[in-house]
Amino acid sequence: GSPLELKCINTIRALAADMVQKANSGHPGAPMGCAPMAHLLWSAVSSGGVGRDHSAADPKWWNRDRFVLSNGHACALQYIMLHLSGYEDCSIDQLKAFRQLGSTTPGHPENFCTKGVEVCTGPLGQGISNAVGMAIAAKHLGATYNTTDFPNVISNKTYVICGDGCLQEGISGEACSLAGHLGLGNLIVLYDDNKITIDGGTDLAFTEDVKMRYEAYGWQVLTVDDVANGLDDLRAAIEEGKKTTDKPTLIKVRTAIGYGSPNKEGKASCHGAPLGASEIEAVKSRLYGLDPLKSFCIDEDVAAYYAQQAAEGDKARVAWEANFAKYMEAYPEKATELQRRFNQELVEGAFDDLPTFVYGKDKPDSTRKFSEACLNAVASKAPELMGGSADLTESNCCQIKGATDFQKASPEGRMIRFGVREHAMAAISNGMFAYGGMRPFCATFLQFAGYALGAMRCSALSKFGVIYIMTHDSIGLGEDGPTHQPVEMLESLRAMPNMNVVRAADLNEMAAAYQIALKSVNTPTVICCTRAPVSALEHSSRDKAMKGGYIILPEEGDGAPDLVLVATGSEVWRCVDAAKALQSEHSIRTRVVSMPCQEAFLEQDESYRRSVLPGNIPTLSVEASSEHGWHRWSHAQVGMTTFGMSGPLEELFVKFGFDAENVANKGKELVEFYKQLDGAVPDLNARPSFVNIKGSAH
Amino acid sequence: GSPLELKCINTIRALAADMVQKANSGHPGAPMGCAPMAHLLWSAVSSGGVGRDHSAADPKWWNRDRFVLSNGHACALQYIMLHLSGYEDCSIDQLKAFRQLGSTTPGHPENFCTKGVEVCTGPLGQGISNAVGMAIAAKHLGATYNTTDFPNVISNKTYVICGDGCLQEGISGEACSLAGHLGLGNLIVLYDDNKITIDGGTDLAFTEDVKMRYEAYGWQVLTVDDVANGLDDLRAAIEEGKKTTDKPTLIKVRTAIGYGSPNKEGKASCHGAPLGASEIEAVKSRLYGLDPLKSFCIDEDVAAYYAQQAAEGDKARVAWEANFAKYMEAYPEKATELQRRFNQELVEGAFDDLPTFVYGKDKPDSTRKFSEACLNAVASKAPELMGGSADLTESNCCQIKGATDFQKASPEGRMIRFGVREHAMAAISNGMFAYGGMRPFCATFLQFAGYALGAMRCSALSKFGVIYIMTHDSIGLGEDGPTHQPVEMLESLRAMPNMNVVRAADLNEMAAAYQIALKSVNTPTVICCTRAPVSALEHSSRDKAMKGGYIILPEEGDGAPDLVLVATGSEVWRCVDAAKALQSEHSIRTRVVSMPCQEAFLEQDESYRRSVLPGNIPTLSVEASSEHGWHRWSHAQVGMTTFGMSGPLEELFVKFGFDAENVANKGKELVEFYKQLDGAVPDLNARPSFVNIKGSAH
Ligand SMILES: [Ca+2]
Ligand SMILES: [Ca+2]
Repeated sequence: GSPLELKCINTIRALAADMVQKANSGHPGAPMGCAPMAHLLWSAVSSGGVGRDHSAADPKWWNRDRFVLSNGHACALQYIMLHLSGYEDCSIDQLKAFRQLGSTTPGHPENFCTKGVEVCTGPLGQGISNAVGMAIAAKHLGATYNTTDFPNVISNKTYVICGDGCLQEGISGEACSLAGHLGLGNLIVLYDDNKITIDGGTDLAFTEDVKMRYEAYGWQVLTVDDVANGLDDLRAAIEEGKKTTDKPTLIKVRTAIGYGSPNKEGKASCHGAPLGASEIEAVKSRLYGLDPLKSFCIDEDVAAYYAQQAAEGDKARVAWEANFAKYMEAYPEKATELQRRFNQELVEGAFDDLPTFVYGKDKPDSTRKFSEACLNAVASKAPELMGGSADLTESNCCQIKGATDFQKASPEGRMIRFGVREHAMAAISNGMFAYGGMRPFCATFLQFAGYALGAMRCSALSKFGVIYIMTHDSIGLGEDGPTHQPVEMLESLRAMPNMNVVRAADLNEMAAAYQIALKSVNTPTVICCTRAPVSALEHSSRDKAMKGGYIILPEEGDGAPDLVLVATGSEVWRCVDAAKALQSEHSIRTRVVSMPCQEAFLEQDESYRRSVLPGNIPTLSVEASSEHGWHRWSHAQVGMTTFGMSGPLEELFVKFGFDAENVANKGKELVEFYKQLDGAVPDLNARPSFVNIKGSAH
Repeated sequence: GSPLELKCINTIRALAADMVQKANSGHPGAPMGCAPMAHLLWSAVSSGGVGRDHSAADPKWWNRDRFVLSNGHACALQYIMLHLSGYEDCSIDQLKAFRQLGSTTPGHPENFCTKGVEVCTGPLGQGISNAVGMAIAAKHLGATYNTTDFPNVISNKTYVICGDGCLQEGISGEACSLAGHLGLGNLIVLYDDNKITIDGGTDLAFTEDVKMRYEAYGWQVLTVDDVANGLDDLRAAIEEGKKTTDKPTLIKVRTAIGYGSPNKEGKASCHGAPLGASEIEAVKSRLYGLDPLKSFCIDEDVAAYYAQQAAEGDKARVAWEANFAKYMEAYPEKATELQRRFNQELVEGAFDDLPTFVYGKDKPDSTRKFSEACLNAVASKAPELMGGSADLTESNCCQIKGATDFQKASPEGRMIRFGVREHAMAAISNGMFAYGGMRPFCATFLQFAGYALGAMRCSALSKFGVIYIMTHDSIGLGEDGPTHQPVEMLESLRAMPNMNVVRAADLNEMAAAYQIALKSVNTPTVICCTRAPVSALEHSSRDKAMKGGYIILPEEGDGAPDLVLVATGSEVWRCVDAAKALQSEHSIRTRVVSMPCQEAFLEQDESYRRSVLPGNIPTLSVEASSEHGWHRWSHAQVGMTTFGMSGPLEELFVKFGFDAENVANKGKELVEFYKQLDGAVPDLNARPSFVNIKGSAH
């Protein structure tokens, strides 16, 4: 590198050390080690850089080259580069407010907080797996919308910086094995091979041959042994990576954590704590081009250098826009559809083809088959629905009819064969959503959401409306037994902020589930489905189900009911049977409430909620899942308190008390319980709901 | 193989097909393909087998060679082999009751259900990762208890059969990378390389070079191209694996799923459904040694063959026992300790050194530091506590003082450097527990329990008392921000059956946490810890905390209190401050309840529970975590309804309402809310609790 480039790199290092020092918390070591990589990734080709095109003027420009900082704890680096490129959220004041409440420079990158940040990273392995999703999205959209005369409407690359931690995580192994299989030549990963993890040297726990592993995945792996004494090798490796379009590239870059720190370079001690004022002064004395007495200092030549690189990127955007205007003229339908997709607008009449169940005419079926019908009804109109299953396509009933597979030789295909890789599947779906123009869906058994929860949480946090199709949603899956029977999973997901959990009782409610899912652009939705058929329901309703909870069987006669049964999914029809028996055999006037989506129900006003669940009427909840959480809605519960067992469905439902007979018995007991208390039914609605957050939160 | 061996193998195949057919559900393909492997693993050395020593007479014999069927859906195979070896839980009647409710032959292997089954498998990737834990346990115990004159007290090997699915899962990559690093030469994995997954050929999603990947991990990888036409290659490979003691061995065995099925062999269609009666007849007509008209048929020569192999294993056990008797004489202390450990007995005075916090004298600290003190207090007495962190040893405060690392060159060490591999860490801990003689502990940030949940659930289901130390347990971790701040995790874990979740408020409660954890031999415990210091509590108590919930600040004066605040962990002292303010400023007589462990509280009798939480007194819960689930205990909640934010702890606690001032304000509002309702406080305890399970469940 030239002296100016060296000064640029050292300026980045000093800024990172300053930011962490001012915040009095954070991670200086990785930014200092990775600064040369960032420098080249933020330099134009004419400056010997990678020519990564992006634009502060339009951070969401569709064809920008994506950058993911998978080792998110190094985010000072990302904020600095965004600052140097003119991104408004990373002003110098924001760099000084690093990790402070309300700043746009939080402790780990947050896509919804800082323009120029693509995804939330920090939980290790997520970012690199997101990047696989972005590369898939780019390949697919390019194959779908580019034409021979407009080959570059979608043609960007995705660049990643990651560390040892990301590569140790299983999720990255899953995602990168798939990336190799798919030959994602638009993906370039720079691996910060600094031989250090938090606990100490990588020799403590990570001595595998990473190069060989990635070659086994089908990647091109290049090695750069030294970035301290020159950028040429790294530059050449990135160029090689850009040229190689039939497979992803991993560049293993030997670096030193905390480069430049006389006492901490190469040591775990500079990973997660400020260097200290005197050490920072020593760094600045030692590194070319820095003034040891200045903080947050960016000399004019350095600022001008990066301004120039940013201008190149913006020029590319302007040229692309001119090209897109011509594309719009030549291919108005394609161009308009792409616009709609990137604008996250629903296709016109998106829900028109959603099926309706006609009671007395249509045949009962499993809700996973109903899900298949609804998925196909919306997917036929909305090409942005792209996804697949973790090797359970048929069991999850998630095949779009007539759709082909997205494979190396068929990138226009919209079904993804994720393999048995649940965690990567969810993270890849996040990356696809983050890319834009996509509404990814993905599927597995509900129990195995437990494998994917790290990434599903990132969907919710990042406001990515990924659609999760989770079948085999209770002990009702039967013989496969407790290893496969979810018990706690519905509650795990319901406890998560910004996550819709929908458990439909029949086809009409399933149509509502898809409508909720598609409308919730910034909230992921988990659609829970049964393996086995459910009986037909006379009074189910898509519109009512959209409210999250509604009366599916009104009590007989006038006045308040004697008992309310509230249930979801495959337990609803059993409650209807139980209610009818209670009425006819015991004259207990019983209402049944179907509650497919607690989140939607909580959004209704109080009077509606009370009209459905009065609260002061004995209420029994029935769900073949953990009771935990149901005390909010019901006085007593028929739910799971143990794990399930292996056996046929109907025997299991009797064993665990979900048969109509037990439900009726328990309903009767509940009514009698309160009679003995002289009718003193605690009113579950008679409690205030406190808003505790001061100001806005994410 | 000899004609008899071929007949043996075919008998296994036919039995598997028969079992699935009779159950009318299950997985015939993998058992039929893997039958030659199982045959050799269940044959003595003298019969050309692997000489795997185990004993139906004592299935828990310590030094048995472990077998893990990682592709658990193939469990018909395991039950058949156990049957042929004389294990009582797998009688021919039980084989006929495959996948039926209450049988000891459930749809996936369950360690607590079937003697001879080591771990629950089925969730893919768990078994092979458990096996890594077993191999670690064997290495460590051997290094600790064997002597030059008694080198074989603990000397067994661990064998695994796994399929493509297990190798695609990230968890196995994590575990196997670590196994290679540790050079676990006592681990031999047979990989059922059948080129088929549920969705179809492995060319759909899994084209990586598995051999190369495992070599990159540091494994010996052997390839067997054909087991259909002879056993010699596989036999030789297993022998080679047994000879290689410095690294684990993967044997890649080319097989055909559903071997012998004229119409389904090699096809995904025989993976997860019965073959059909006529197809089974065709199989039996085709395969040597079978009678096409007989079901569940085991000819005498076949039965005699396996009885002979089982007898060899039992002989080995008898010889080992004689040797152990001599060891007991020579090394009574070691032998007795080993017995205690395998009997899962607590060491005498296990809790004697647990520290006590003296109010007014001791210095406040974070509960993670308190956890460190308690861990060390018990670990100094209990050598069965072995474990470590996923690369956060210092942050998790989980170093046993003076303990060395378990490494290839130091297998006697008891600290494990798991690397950034949370999911494998939990599964390895499960395997160590399953091995026996071990109380594994493992640690990460609470948020990253989300990465490990698949395996943590297996701890709970399998009744493995693994101890999870989870620090940074709320938004109180501060600047790292919402990617690292758990919100839903406590509720996820509380919703899980057979899982203790303990969130201690200070050192005394932390001592209770460790006491609960160690006493819960068959229930895993999650110990949640703060990053930051908590203020001292005057009335905390280890004994009272053992009850799960107790009054930590009684209301002033006589009669029922005006308000109850119930909190956990770092919110308790803030509630105490709030309560004092409510009393002094508003004369609201406020009780504070500390509830470190809901599970333990629910085990107390009703009168105790009512004495702590009356239910009909306005009750406000305060926990810096999801409100979800707290409606059971409180009328209103101060809790999280969104994700957190990046910023300093105290600012976050004010922002989200967990400061004493907001708690006091909300407490006052709650009291006033019910005054306006003329004091009609719904009694949260006035509800019945129904037991719905008929008979016993797991
Ligand atoms: Ca590193
Ligand atoms: Ca397979």
